[in-house]
Amino acid sequence: MVRKDNLLKSGSLGVGVTLAPPLIIEPLGSKKDYIVMGNKSVNLSTVTYALEEILKLPKDRVITVRVKAKEYLKIGYGYGLSAAITLGAAAINMVLNKDLMVSKGFKVSLNEAGKVAHISEIVNQTGYGDLMAEMHGGGLVVRVKEGGPGYGVVDKIPVSSSIKVITAHLKRPKHTKVMLNEMGRRGIELGLKYFNEFMKDPSIETFSRLAHDFSLETGLMTLEEDLKIKESLRDLLSSSGVLGYFIKKSLLVVVAEEQVVNDVTYALLKNFGHAYVFNLYFGSTYMVV
Amino acid sequence: MVRKDNLLKSGSLGVGVTLAPPLIIEPLGSKKDYIVMGNKSVNLSTVTYALEEILKLPKDRVITVRVKAKEYLKIGYGYGLSAAITLGAAAINMVLNKDLMVSKGFKVSLNEAGKVAHISEIVNQTGYGDLMAEMHGGGLVVRVKEGGPGYGVVDKIPVSSSIKVITAHLKRPKHTKVMLNEMGRRGIELGLKYFNEFMKDPSIETFSRLAHDFSLETGLMTLEEDLKIKESLRDLLSSSGVLGYFIKKSLLVVVAEEQVVNDVTYALLKNFGHAYVFNLYFGSTYMVV
Repeated sequence: MVRKDNLLKSGSLGVGVTLAPPLIIEPLGSKKDYIVMGNKSVNLSTVTYALEEILKLPKDRVITVRVKAKEYLKIGYGYGLSAAITLGAAAINMVLNKDLMVSKGFKVSLNEAGKVAHISEIVNQTGYGDLMAEMHGGGLVVRVKEGGPGYGVVDKIPVSSSIKVITAHLKRPKHTKVMLNEMGRRGIELGLKYFNEFMKDPSIETFSRLAHDFSLETGLMTLEEDLKIKESLRDLLSSSGVLGYFIKKSLLVVVAEEQVVNDVTYALLKNFGHAYVFNLYFGSTYMVV
Repeated sequence: MVRKDNLLKSGSLGVGVTLAPPLIIEPLGSKKDYIVMGNKSVNLSTVTYALEEILKLPKDRVITVRVKAKEYLKIGYGYGLSAAITLGAAAINMVLNKDLMVSKGFKVSLNEAGKVAHISEIVNQTGYGDLMAEMHGGGLVVRVKEGGPGYGVVDKIPVSSSIKVITAHLKRPKHTKVMLNEMGRRGIELGLKYFNEFMKDPSIETFSRLAHDFSLETGLMTLEEDLKIKESLRDLLSSSGVLGYFIKKSLLVVVAEEQVVNDVTYALLKNFGHAYVFNLYFGSTYMVV
């Protein structure tokens, strides 16, 4: 993670997977709330900051956005929803207030909305990379140069379409801000070490293996958790259908081949009471008006 | 168009539309040909150069690619197929020869395949921008900084999903190389003038209007052609359902709202004997193995 005076040149290197189905974010007209998700209004500091502080939209010009997502996709768990919703809210508010935006010197495009979201994420210390990965998509996404739209560089590594991701929610939310502060310089150094290791042989197998070791070495996954998960997936790990597992914030993430998805799901159901299966999303973010 | 010693920093600024459905390019195993399209083998200097000169693949390691496309999509007409096929052939050959590629110092990713295709396009003078626009996709695509993957910057302008593109094939192929040589410095200056004009108010309406004026001022569209097309679309232009028309290589391109597509198609059928209707493609290029 690098923070520079120009926030658009700030960001982090990293690797992640983009999951299907993609989030759909729609305008709802001018209402009291900024975000509605599953009929409930939601507050996100990054959206408030983006609309009020960066775009300086008068409150009566703010367009409420509706986030269409499966009900198990929760904000703050590690799915990267915060970045996606901030991008969507910025894009919709810029497009539907185009004249006002242009008069304030803003341009209206996907990258310009992305810059607003990127800056908001960095100022609010909520993320340093989800946004760029999500904007580009592509399954297994690498941020090879830090920075927001126009500065950062993202690359895509080929992945088999038979790869699935199965998640379970762990009951101990850790906010990105807390995590980043706790980890400090050591987290940054560890991150760079693992990133360089990944780049020696970029693949979904390498990612799955290193993400496990990274979450263990940083303490994002405790040794107890590792043993418990390893035990519950034992037969599947030895059959090598499971490529790996790791913890991101409150998420247990298992990367597996199609043919063992049912077995992994069953094992997670037994141990955590629930499990969610995802395909990779190979597309990118786009705007249709 | 800027050409630098580092070919990855060379390229052009520009604006274009990406059309649906996207091209699908598949491996066919090792055969005599490099490219098969509609059961016929096809020769593309950019693919030969990419595989033989840049990747230095021994002939027995070359993987033939099959291009799946509607039969009216022809190479060299202006659809940008050459860039897309070169990218696909490079990507497939890199992925399926990964060990060999890595031993030669190449990395295997979408950007790395894109770099190979970008360099091949520039060396062969076949294009300076299609590739980056196609890799990013997004409907109305702007190349805001020239260069290949990792260097160039692409942005996406919001467009209504009701916008359609209708093409007709004019019987006078002009190859990019010939065109670039003919236009020389004047073409570059005109291009930059129109690009800057577009950036003052980026939208599909601005694009459609300026692309017309650009193709007329550069001579890509003659005054006679302009009058003939204007005459055939007369009623539609005044109803403002047609946003504009222009000529790119051998293509007459009409940008229009959904509700006048049938009328435009009929007018082109009457005047050119054929017409092809496209949606915009909002996705990006991706690799699934």
